[in-house]
Amino acid sequence: MVKIADLLRLKIPFVLASSSPRRKKLLEMLGLSPEIVIPDVDEDNIATDVYDYSLKVTEIAKAKAITVANKINYDAIILGADTIVVLDGNILTKPIDEYEAKIMLKKLSNRTHIVFTGIVLLHKPSFKFKTCFRRTEVSFRKLEEDEIEAYVNSGSPLDKAGAYGIQDDFGAVFVKSVNGCYYNIVGLPLECFYTSLRKFINELESEGLL
Amino acid sequence: MVKIADLLRLKIPFVLASSSPRRKKLLEMLGLSPEIVIPDVDEDNIATDVYDYSLKVTEIAKAKAITVANKINYDAIILGADTIVVLDGNILTKPIDEYEAKIMLKKLSNRTHIVFTGIVLLHKPSFKFKTCFRRTEVSFRKLEEDEIEAYVNSGSPLDKAGAYGIQDDFGAVFVKSVNGCYYNIVGLPLECFYTSLRKFINELESEGLL
Repeated sequence: MVKIADLLRLKIPFVLASSSPRRKKLLEMLGLSPEIVIPDVDEDNIATDVYDYSLKVTEIAKAKAITVANKINYDAIILGADTIVVLDGNILTKPIDEYEAKIMLKKLSNRTHIVFTGIVLLHKPSFKFKTCFRRTEVSFRKLEEDEIEAYVNSGSPLDKAGAYGIQDDFGAVFVKSVNGCYYNIVGLPLECFYTSLRKFINELESEGLL
Repeated sequence: MVKIADLLRLKIPFVLASSSPRRKKLLEMLGLSPEIVIPDVDEDNIATDVYDYSLKVTEIAKAKAITVANKINYDAIILGADTIVVLDGNILTKPIDEYEAKIMLKKLSNRTHIVFTGIVLLHKPSFKFKTCFRRTEVSFRKLEEDEIEAYVNSGSPLDKAGAYGIQDDFGAVFVKSVNGCYYNIVGLPLECFYTSLRKFINELESEGLL
């Protein structure tokens, strides 16, 4: 069956510069088979002086893509991405343990937070690139104690920024409403990714680079 | 692993009064194992004089749940649900053929439409019930001819109201943003379903009906 990614007619390898299993799964859903190359960048030391969240995630995404471009020895289009969860002007990272996961979920309860994802598409060897980002508001209902307890005990919150996944069974019933791109919350805004990639391929082709 | 539905401690059968494979999948994701009983109701002849969309979907959902309650010969909680897609005050149903599917997608292109889902939880034998509904705005980007063509040829639009599924590879990159409950667009607003079911079970228990 034809998948949306078939329309791109991508002729060179496509590399995902991310270890996120959720991003890989979303790309596969579109019909892409990304090669995974994990960028060894220290996110905490990138864009530390950037206080605009959209810019910050895009800068981190770019650092990831460039690191991977320098690591591989073949031509490719590389996708770098970074997602952050912001509540009251504070960035919620991945919780360090179950205790912190519970604190995060209690903070998110009955409140609206914001998810930012920046993505960078980078072409090797030209090092031309294209960026885009999305901002999505996410409103949680009031969570019950036993729900937080059971969710954290399931282990799922521990590898997720903000300690939840909207695609989880628990996350799905915690989130009352969203405003913006849904897939941004999962970690990869698919509409902006796909339209950017389509434009990028066209541009590279018209410049004779693909 | 504990699933969110385990917290409900549901002691009687749970029946889904819908043939939708997407609703079944969402319920299973929460950890429920619904029995499927398809309601043989003629949706076109229910609530024909109801022009409030939220009320209309809730009335149709109720008719489905009641039909199934009368069909089965055991005690259960029955879920009825109905979803409609509205553009410019017109309801978009499931397309009758590929030609109509293309017309619908062209209409949705570069526009915002609204998805309504009403759900009804019905207890047999008491026939007590609980309802809720959700309204979500969905904004499409401008679609390209080849995208509409390939999507319709894939066959996926034909069994879907409005001729798209946001969980499809094509639908995922067509939708720019949503405002409201995401799972409502898939066909079952999980947050309102789960919180309603939790309250409903508590109420039935306190009345000695469960």
